Amino acid sequence: MKKISDPGAYLERQRHAVEKFLAGLFDAGGAPSSLQEAMRYSVNAGGKRMRPLLVMAAAETLGHPGEKLLPVAAALELVHTYSLIHDDLPAMDDSDLRRGKPSCHRAYGEAMAILAGDALLTLAFELVAGYGLQEGRPAQALQIALELARAAGREGMVGGQVLDLEAEGKAVDLEGLEKIDRLKTGALLQAAVRCGAIAAGASKEQLKALDGYASRLGLAFQITDDLLDLEGDTAEMGKETGADRVRGKATLPALLGTEAARRRAGELYCEALASLEALEKPAELLRELARRLVFRTK
Amino acid sequence: MKKISDPGAYLERQRHAVEKFLAGLFDAGGAPSSLQEAMRYSVNAGGKRMRPLLVMAAAETLGHPGEKLLPVAAALELVHTYSLIHDDLPAMDDSDLRRGKPSCHRAYGEAMAILAGDALLTLAFELVAGYGLQEGRPAQALQIALELARAAGREGMVGGQVLDLEAEGKAVDLEGLEKIDRLKTGALLQAAVRCGAIAAGASKEQLKALDGYASRLGLAFQITDDLLDLEGDTAEMGKETGADRVRGKATLPALLGTEAARRRAGELYCEALASLEALEKPAELLRELARRLVFRTK
Repeated sequence: MKKISDPGAYLERQRHAVEKFLAGLFDAGGAPSSLQEAMRYSVNAGGKRMRPLLVMAAAETLGHPGEKLLPVAAALELVHTYSLIHDDLPAMDDSDLRRGKPSCHRAYGEAMAILAGDALLTLAFELVAGYGLQEGRPAQALQIALELARAAGREGMVGGQVLDLEAEGKAVDLEGLEKIDRLKTGALLQAAVRCGAIAAGASKEQLKALDGYASRLGLAFQITDDLLDLEGDTAEMGKETGADRVRGKATLPALLGTEAARRRAGELYCEALASLEALEKPAELLRELARRLVFRTK
Repeated sequence: MKKISDPGAYLERQRHAVEKFLAGLFDAGGAPSSLQEAMRYSVNAGGKRMRPLLVMAAAETLGHPGEKLLPVAAALELVHTYSLIHDDLPAMDDSDLRRGKPSCHRAYGEAMAILAGDALLTLAFELVAGYGLQEGRPAQALQIALELARAAGREGMVGGQVLDLEAEGKAVDLEGLEKIDRLKTGALLQAAVRCGAIAAGASKEQLKALDGYASRLGLAFQITDDLLDLEGDTAEMGKETGADRVRGKATLPALLGTEAARRRAGELYCEALASLEALEKPAELLRELARRLVFRTK
């Protein structure tokens, strides 16, 4: 890949393409319009589209056009959105707000929120399968589906959510906390990077370098999230903040203090960038995304 | 395929293989044991394993060994099980019993039930992807994943569940009712047959014949279910029966009367068997499964 002179502008264009693709997903003829409305509501509620951008940036970095991967990129966003809908449910985190708007179950009722989440998760795999058949790359698409399923499932995101719920109100040490974060948010971010890389036909060495980048990024991202939760107010974050503290949820800032947590996020950021060196490719896009994920204010 | 002299015994052997395969699924090292316990509880709660058997019988009928498809067969059962767990939730059908035992949320709590369902759905796609990579049949596995996702998602099972919830307490005509049934239960039964057929390399004509079989079977199955709900008692069905009537849910027996509904199920059964004629293959297994699905007492 040639060096991209303005990675920020480049990512904005990609993000625009992702938004457009996502907006076109909810007009399936055979589905109840109420269900599609709830799905669209949550997917269009905003968000930075970091997972789709990671898919496309990883592919671009290895010389594969990012826009070819829009269905895969969108699949990652759908899995992320479904997890937010289910996490917000009364039986789980019981959140009334998400991204500054009523959470899905507050807007459409609990039954519809459960089903909208189920349908988004299912649609993610439909998109990946459709991509593989359309592009004539079945083996790579299957590998992508496997990555996505593992990252999203019992040994990934869902497993992390279980550990997170079980840890509420209990003493959790640093190791336990990093395990929760690695599963709950890290696994899907890492899958985003890996899916893009697999589509680009990455070598084992390239995958290893990208894993190093993504795993650190995931942890740094979660620490930033926890710091914002601790410090932010509802208006800024668009969700109920300080909520972790109220529920007695263990977070790294709560465990180590704000200053040490901020330092740890910075270290992880540096390690993530250092991992990219082994790629021996210009990786401005991935560096820019790391910067956005770690040094954000909302 | 040679004519199978004792399809009943043959299906029992296949069913045994399915049980064994399912029992081995819940020891993944990286997943929380509490989550796996809830998943195992619901998957092992019994059930006739009709969807896995349909996968394997469809493949066998077209000359492909059924046991090669155990991961795909299991995937169908996991999707079915996840749908039961989520349907039973308080926000949905609010059922305390399932197959004679406490429903998943009664046994493990609501949060765990939501997450166990999510994890089972995700694991289904993991199994299909793993099957395709291991067997070196990526294009067929992708086609199977696509079938499964479409049948399970917004234009299939989840869509049907939405329509079903929205129809509660409202007047629904025969056409509306058959649409709900076709999506809510028919789509996944049909997908089971189609997945087995695709794995066996079915021709378009064969798929068409099997579609004819499966679509009638799905409707007949649902009518039988509704009749049993209407007539049965809790001990026999192992779930709360008469519950449809209490919630004012429209069913075909409620709309047409018991006798007409029974006749309709019988007609659909005959049409299903007639569709198999076009296969020009001995299809005792599929005939036997139809018999079991339609003429059952629980």
